[in-house]
Amino acid sequence: MKPAAENVCNPDLLKERAHCRFIPEEITHFLDNGSENTKLRHKLEEYFLNNPLFDDDIPPDYLSHSERYSNELRKSCAMVQCFLNDPTVQNIAGQMEGVRMLMGNGLGSAITKDGNPLALHYVMFLPALISQASQEQMAYWIGRAWAGQIIGTYAQTELGHGSFLRGLETTATYDPDSEEFVLHSPTITSIKWWPGGLGKTANHAVVMAQLYTEGKCWGPHAFIVQLRDLDTHASLPGISVGEIGPRLGTNSQDNGFLRLHHVRIPRLHMLMQHAQVTKSGEYVQPASSKLTYGTMVFVRVAICFDAGRQLQRAVTIATRYSAVRRQSELVPGEGEVQVLDYQTQQHKLLPQLATVFAVTFSARRLWETYNSVTHGPKEAQLALLPELHVLSCGLKAACASDCSLGCDVCRLACGGHGYLASSNLPRIVTATTATQTYEGENTVMWLQVARYLLKVYSDGLESGEEAGPSVQFLREPRPDLTAPSHARLTNYGLVMGWRVAVVALLQEAQQELQRRVAAGQQPDRARDACSLTLVDAAQCYIRGHMCCQFVAGVDELQGLSAGTTLVLQQLCRLYLLYHASSSHLLRHGWLSGADVSQLEAEYRALLTELRQDAVALVDSFDIHDRILNSTLGAADGRVYDRLYEEALKSPLNQQDVPDAFNKYLRPLLKSSL
Amino acid sequence: MKPAAENVCNPDLLKERAHCRFIPEEITHFLDNGSENTKLRHKLEEYFLNNPLFDDDIPPDYLSHSERYSNELRKSCAMVQCFLNDPTVQNIAGQMEGVRMLMGNGLGSAITKDGNPLALHYVMFLPALISQASQEQMAYWIGRAWAGQIIGTYAQTELGHGSFLRGLETTATYDPDSEEFVLHSPTITSIKWWPGGLGKTANHAVVMAQLYTEGKCWGPHAFIVQLRDLDTHASLPGISVGEIGPRLGTNSQDNGFLRLHHVRIPRLHMLMQHAQVTKSGEYVQPASSKLTYGTMVFVRVAICFDAGRQLQRAVTIATRYSAVRRQSELVPGEGEVQVLDYQTQQHKLLPQLATVFAVTFSARRLWETYNSVTHGPKEAQLALLPELHVLSCGLKAACASDCSLGCDVCRLACGGHGYLASSNLPRIVTATTATQTYEGENTVMWLQVARYLLKVYSDGLESGEEAGPSVQFLREPRPDLTAPSHARLTNYGLVMGWRVAVVALLQEAQQELQRRVAAGQQPDRARDACSLTLVDAAQCYIRGHMCCQFVAGVDELQGLSAGTTLVLQQLCRLYLLYHASSSHLLRHGWLSGADVSQLEAEYRALLTELRQDAVALVDSFDIHDRILNSTLGAADGRVYDRLYEEALKSPLNQQDVPDAFNKYLRPLLKSSL
Repeated sequence: MKPAAENVCNPDLLKERAHCRFIPEEITHFLDNGSENTKLRHKLEEYFLNNPLFDDDIPPDYLSHSERYSNELRKSCAMVQCFLNDPTVQNIAGQMEGVRMLMGNGLGSAITKDGNPLALHYVMFLPALISQASQEQMAYWIGRAWAGQIIGTYAQTELGHGSFLRGLETTATYDPDSEEFVLHSPTITSIKWWPGGLGKTANHAVVMAQLYTEGKCWGPHAFIVQLRDLDTHASLPGISVGEIGPRLGTNSQDNGFLRLHHVRIPRLHMLMQHAQVTKSGEYVQPASSKLTYGTMVFVRVAICFDAGRQLQRAVTIATRYSAVRRQSELVPGEGEVQVLDYQTQQHKLLPQLATVFAVTFSARRLWETYNSVTHGPKEAQLALLPELHVLSCGLKAACASDCSLGCDVCRLACGGHGYLASSNLPRIVTATTATQTYEGENTVMWLQVARYLLKVYSDGLESGEEAGPSVQFLREPRPDLTAPSHARLTNYGLVMGWRVAVVALLQEAQQELQRRVAAGQQPDRARDACSLTLVDAAQCYIRGHMCCQFVAGVDELQGLSAGTTLVLQQLCRLYLLYHASSSHLLRHGWLSGADVSQLEAEYRALLTELRQDAVALVDSFDIHDRILNSTLGAADGRVYDRLYEEALKSPLNQQDVPDAFNKYLRPLLKSSL
Repeated sequence: MKPAAENVCNPDLLKERAHCRFIPEEITHFLDNGSENTKLRHKLEEYFLNNPLFDDDIPPDYLSHSERYSNELRKSCAMVQCFLNDPTVQNIAGQMEGVRMLMGNGLGSAITKDGNPLALHYVMFLPALISQASQEQMAYWIGRAWAGQIIGTYAQTELGHGSFLRGLETTATYDPDSEEFVLHSPTITSIKWWPGGLGKTANHAVVMAQLYTEGKCWGPHAFIVQLRDLDTHASLPGISVGEIGPRLGTNSQDNGFLRLHHVRIPRLHMLMQHAQVTKSGEYVQPASSKLTYGTMVFVRVAICFDAGRQLQRAVTIATRYSAVRRQSELVPGEGEVQVLDYQTQQHKLLPQLATVFAVTFSARRLWETYNSVTHGPKEAQLALLPELHVLSCGLKAACASDCSLGCDVCRLACGGHGYLASSNLPRIVTATTATQTYEGENTVMWLQVARYLLKVYSDGLESGEEAGPSVQFLREPRPDLTAPSHARLTNYGLVMGWRVAVVALLQEAQQELQRRVAAGQQPDRARDACSLTLVDAAQCYIRGHMCCQFVAGVDELQGLSAGTTLVLQQLCRLYLLYHASSSHLLRHGWLSGADVSQLEAEYRALLTELRQDAVALVDSFDIHDRILNSTLGAADGRVYDRLYEEALKSPLNQQDVPDAFNKYLRPLLKSSL
C-alpha cells in the first residue's frame, strides 16, 4: 500500500475546475470589495501564514485547557509584536484595519484557532474608549492601549443579566469627598461574567455599572477599572477575577468573571464623552441617546460579515469534499458517483453558497447606507437611525441563524468525517452558533424589530422619526393578490410576497392586541400574547429585505463578465426559490399550491445548472488552506491521505500500548480469567 | 457578599411545583415502562452514583486528550468490575440489561461523561457475535467476551465508505491450503475508521470484509480478527491500529483506525450463523436476507430512545433554568419576570416537552409490534418485516433530527450560559447530533423510506410482501378536502392532512418520473431528479405516523388520573399544532390560511395552559442531578451559585497569575513601554 503522491490534485477536483462558466477572480474581488483589498489580504496571509512563530507543535485539541490558553496567548502576543514592531506589516496594512483583520475571525483565526485572549482589547476595549471617552481621556488612554502597555477588556454582562441592560446590578457610587467612584458587586448575580481576556489576560476593563450620585441612580455607565498590577500582573485589592471555565467553542480566550469589593477609582475614570459627573457630584445628561445606536450598528454588521465568512469556509469544505467523495452507484453497474451529483446533496450545499451572497449584499448595503446617513445632516441621522438600527438587529439575527444552520448543514453533509476535529467543521459550527447569542440575543433582536414594525404600521412613530425605505411598503396599498402568476413569481414578485405576509401578520397581531386590550388585559401582557405572530412578521420582513437586497445588488453590479453575471443571477434566483417554500407565502395568499410546485421544479433545474459551478464558486471565495485548516476541504482534495496523516499526530498514537492499559485494562483482563 | 445557603431550593421552583395539575410519578412510571423499572433504576443509580470509584478529580474538560481517555478507561473498567464481581449489582439487574444501561447513554453517561472506551464491546461486539456466530462459535467466544477476557469492537465503516456497504474495500480471501482467510486493506480508503474502542482499547474486532473464495467475490461478511497480544496489548504483526483524533463530542472512546496487511486468521473466525465457507473453500449461501433486518430495527429503535433521553435532559435543564432566570420587565415597574413567562420562551421549550412523548410512544409501539411479529409465524415476518424496517429507518431519522434540533433549541434558550460546558448542554448537543449520522445517515434513511412508499403507491411490492398498517392509506380513496374545518382540524383530521400530503407528493414525484423516463432519461437518474419531492413525502409520512402514534397512545392509556391524562392530551394536541404550521398541510389543500390562524391561536392558548406544568413535567422525567450534571438544571435551582462554584474549579483559577504571563504577556507589556 503506497500513500498517494503528495501535491497531486484530486482528478475530480481538476475536472470540476475545468468546466467553470465564470471568472472566479471577479467573485473574489467582489467579496473583498475591490481587487486592491484582495492584494492586501494576500500579502498579509503570506506574511503571517509562512511565519514559524505561529506554528503549533501539535493541534490544540490535544492540549489541556491550561496549555491551550498558554499556546494561544503565545501566538496572540507574537501577532501584536509583529504589528507594533515590524515595518513590513505596518506598511502592508493601516494599523487599525490590519489588527482588526487579525483579531477578528479572518486571518487571525488561522493563527489563534481556539480563540484569542487579546481580541477583546482590540475589538471592544479600544472601540469603547474611542466612542465613549472624552478628548482628554482619549489623550491619556488610547496611546497606551494602542501600544499594548495596558491590556483591556469590556465587562458588561453579569451572571444574572445579559440582554436587559437596565437590570445590571454592579454599582458605581460617587463619593464627592474623595472625588472617587466606588465600584461594587452587591450580589452573586452581579458578578461580571463572559468578557474575553478578563480571566487571566487583561489588566484593565471598561466596566458597565449603575451610576449613583447625589442619592439617585442614573442608569448604566462605563468606567475604566484597573484589575491587575502592571508589573506583577497580580490582581489588585478588592478585585476577584478568574476564568469561567470551558465552553462549546473558543476555549482559549479566557472568558472571565469579575467581582468588585468596594473598589475606588478616580472620578475621571468614568468615560465622559456623553454623560458627565462633576467634581461636586452633579450629573450632566448626554445630548441624545439615539446617536449611540451607531456603535451597535457597527458591531452587528460586523457579526453579519463574520458569520458569512464562517459559512464561506463551511461550504468550501463541504463542496470540495462532495466532489472528491464517491459513494453508491446512481445507476447500477456504472460505478460510484461523486456525492455532489445527488440532488439531495446539491439541495444541502447550493443554497448555502447563495446565502453567502445574500449576507454580503445585505450587510454591505446597510453599512454603506449607515455611513452615508451619519455623514449627512444631523436631523437626517436622528430621523433615519432608528430604522437602520432595527435593520441591523434583524440582519444580525437572520445572518447569525442562517449561517449557523448553514454551517451545520455543511457539517452534516460530510457525514461522519464532518464530526472529526480535523475537518475543522466542529470548530466552525461551534464558533458560528455563538453569534446567535452574543451582542443581542436573537429572540430579543426579533422582538425589537417587531416592535418597530408595529409602530410604523400603526402610525406610532415619534415626532421627527421617519419611516425609512425598507418599511415604506407598510404604508402603501396592499398589492394585488390576484395578479397573474407570472407577476407574482418573478424576483420582485416574490419580494412582494414577503411584504404581503408582513402586513397580514401585523394586521393579525394588531387585531389580537386590540381585542385583548378591549377585554381588559394589560397592554404589555397583551403584546406578549401576540409575540409569536410579531416575531413571524419580523422574520418575514428581514427575509423579504434580504431577498430584495440580493436582487437589487445583482441588478446593479457593473463591469462583470456575462458568465459571472449569469451565475450570480442564478444564485439569487435559487435563494429566492429556496425560501419561497415557506408557509408564509402560501398562507397569506401570495402563492397557490400549484405555484409552489412550479417554483420547486424551477429550483430543481437550477440545482442542476449551478452544480457544475459549485467547486469554482467555493474556489472564488479564495480561502487559504491554512485558514480552512481542514482535511476535507484543502484545495488539492487529498482528503483521505490528510485524514490519515492528521490522525497519526494524536499523542495517543505516539506509543502502541497506552499507559492506561497497564493501570486499568490489564487488571480487568486478568481478573476475569 | 454572602453566598446563598446551600441546599435551599430556589423559591420560584418551589412555587412552580406547588401548582402542578397532575401526578408526576404516573409520568415517571410511564416513561420507565412500569413502576418496577423505576425502582430498579433508582437502585442502580444509588449504587453507582454514590460510589467514589466513579468520581472525577476535576471535570474532564480540563484534561488533555490522552488524560481524558485514561480517566474514562479507569471508570469504565471499574464499572465492568462491579458487574462481574459484585453480587449486589448482579442482583439488582439481569447482567445484560444492566450492562446495557451502563454502557449506553443512560446511567453510564453520568459516569463516563466523555465517551466509554468499553461501550462498543457490549453494545456492538457481543450483539454481533450473538446474531452472526454459529452455535460452536458462540460456545467459544461468548463466555470469554462476556467475562471481559477479551475486549472487542465492530469494524465496518472505512475511510472511503460508510452507508454504502457494498462499496467496502477490505478483502478476506480464503486460502484452502492453509484453511485460513487472508485479511487485507488494499488502499488508503479501505482503512477501517471510526469504531469506538478500536484505537487503544480493543484486542479483538469483528471486521466486515469482502469475502473472496474460489475466485469469486461474495460480498461483505463478518470475521473475528485478533488485534493485540492478550498479555502485552502490543498490536500484532500486520495490524496497524490507532485512534482517529478529536471530534465534536465523545472524545474519550478512542474511535480508531485499522489497516490490515495480509493478516491470516483461521477459517472458523468467519462468523458462520448465516453464510459459510467449507474447508475446501465452497461458499454456502444464507437462507433469507430479510431476517437480518431485525438487528437493524433493534439498533435504530435504540437510537430513538437514546435521542429522546438526551432531549429529556436538555429540556429539563432549560425549563428549570427558565423558571429561575428572571430577565426584563414584562410590565414596566412590576419587576423582572421568569423567562418562562415569555411566549417566545414557551414556544421554544414546550414543543420539546411534547416531542419527548411523541418519540416515546412511536418508538415503543414500533418495538412492541416488531417483537410480536417476530414471535409469529415466519411467513408473517417475511411479509411485514420490510415495513417495520422502513418505519425504523424513518423514525430513526426523525427522532435523531427532531431531538438534535430540540436539544440545540434548549441550549440556545439558556442564552450565553447554555454555551458553558458546566451547563452540560454542549455535551448533550454534540452527542445527540451524532445520531443523525451514525447507523444509517439520515438522508440515506429518508431515501429508503421514500423508495418503499413509492413501491407501495405504485403497486410494486414483491410477491409475499404486504403493505403494512402504516401505509394502508396509500391504497385508500383520497379523503375529502372539502370536509368542514371541524373535521379537518381534529387530531385525526390533522393526521389525515399528513397523509393527503404524502399522496400528493408521491403523485407529483411519480408523474415527474414517468415524464422523464418517457423523455428518454435513464430511470435511476430520473428518480434522483425527483428525490427532493420523495424525501418530502417520506418526512410527511413519518410526521403523520408520529402524530398518529401520539394520539392513539394517549387514547389507549389506562389507569391514569384525570389530571395526568389531561396534561398528556394537551401535550399531544400541542405537538400536532406545532407541526401543523408546515407548508405541506397548506400546500396540498388540507388547511386554508384561515385554518392555520385558528390553529395558531389554539396553540398559543395551549402554551399558556401547559406553562404552569412545565417544571413538574420535567421533574417527572426523574433525571438524577448527577446524570443531568448541569449548573443550570439541578433540581434545587441554585443556578448562579453553581455556575460560580464550577468556574472556581478551573485549573487556570488555581493561581492568580498564570505561568503564561511571564513567558508571553510580560515581554509584550514591557517592550511597548
